[in-house]
This record gives sequence, C-alpha cells and structure tokens, in this order.
Amino acid sequence: MPSIFTRIIQGEIPCYKIAENDRFFAFLDINPNAIGHTLCVPKKEVDKLLDLDEETYTGLMAFARKVGLALEAAVPCKRVGMTVIGLEVPHVHVHLIPLQTMANATFQHKVSLTPGEFEEVAARIRASL
Amino acid sequence: MPSIFTRIIQGEIPCYKIAENDRFFAFLDINPNAIGHTLCVPKKEVDKLLDLDEETYTGLMAFARKVGLALEAAVPCKRVGMTVIGLEVPHVHVHLIPLQTMANATFQHKVSLTPGEFEEVAARIRASL
Repeated sequence: MPSIFTRIIQGEIPCYKIAENDRFFAFLDINPNAIGHTLCVPKKEVDKLLDLDEETYTGLMAFARKVGLALEAAVPCKRVGMTVIGLEVPHVHVHLIPLQTMANATFQHKVSLTPGEFEEVAARIRASL
Repeated sequence: MPSIFTRIIQGEIPCYKIAENDRFFAFLDINPNAIGHTLCVPKKEVDKLLDLDEETYTGLMAFARKVGLALEAAVPCKRVGMTVIGLEVPHVHVHLIPLQTMANATFQHKVSLTPGEFEEVAARIRASL
C-alpha cells in the first residue's frame, strides 16, 4: 500500500504544497511544531534515510537546503532546524522547523493553524523560493 | 573565542573521536540521548547549518551519511535519526542518534555512560567505518 506521503504526492490527499521537482516534494506538516514546519520527501518511497542510495540522499539534502533557505526568509525564527526521525511514517521525510526555542524541536508541543493560516504561510514560503 | 567544538577538534578538549578528514570531524556526544549518539561538525566554524556554503553543506551531509551507516551497523537500533538544532553551541553540528523510541529523539531523556563505555562504543563505531 502506498504511504500517506506517496498519496499526498500523487494528489490523492490534499496538502499545502511548497515545492516539487522530478524527484522531491515539499509540503507543510499538518501537525506542526511551529508555524512553517515543512516536510521534504523523496518521491521514491524508501523507509529509512540511510537506506536511500547516495544520489537520492544527496539530492534530498540539496532540495531541503533550498526549501530551508526559503523558509528562513519567509518565517521569523532564530534558525531553521532539520530533523529526520521516521518512526511513524515509513517514507523518508526531512522536517524543516522554524525554531524559536528548544520546545519547537522536541515534537512534544504542537501549534494549531486554520486552513487560511496554512495557506497564507505556504504562499509566503513559496514566494521566497 | 573558538567554539567548544573547535577546541575539541584542535585537541584542546578531549573527546571520544569517531572520524576525521580534512574538513569534518565526528565524536561522541558527551550528554547522549542514546548510546552511540554522535556529532558531526565542519572544521570551519559557522553558526547555522543554512549559512554554510553549498559545498561545505553537501560535504557535511555526505560525511554524516558515512558515519551514520557505521553507527547503524555498530549500535543496535531501529534506525539512526539525524537532527540539526544548534540553539546551544554556535557551531554547526549534526546529531546522529540511534533510535529505539521517540524518546531518543526529543533531547529530554539522557543516558549516562562511564568513560569505559564511551570508549567501547566509539571503538565499535570506528571499526564499522
């Protein structure tokens, strides 16, 4: 069965899309640690980061860098954190999180946004790309 | 003043070293989230990940991948997580953390090792490189 991220990439499940190219896709995390929390995923469905072939790994990190720079320009924060855990969804995803405090990095405190707020922040990040 | 990581790289502060090349350095985190928790840092002292020039960023991620694969081979875990936060030490560092549960990724639960245990796990990771 395709992962939830593959279903998002294929347009079967809606998302607040940030960026896409032939190999990678970025969209807002729907249960964010902070406003602007973005996920970058390879279209190739692989469970673990370190199981990606070297070229896909390198490409994903380059893609995450570009999205992260746009995020840093678009969302006020001290810096953009990057985290790969992957214990929940078995499809590699790089979290890019605008950090103000350590609490934004622990995945234990979440923020709520309305659909309009998600749309607005996604548009701001896209405009910075 | 040089960062604590620069002082470690220069040998002024001791560490449990894992790997080193001309541009990057890896050593065990002394306050680990899990056994084998390793830090990968560029020798160039830059505060934020996304402020690294593209070549150094790409090199750091490639270095972290190699160390991460050795870590995964050496330390029993579900997977190796990767996190860059950087709110405490202003010198880019990639956390590589052997994960069993989400608790290993939150930076809120720490494990204690004796010097002998640090030495032993460092030797095991180095042997897997």
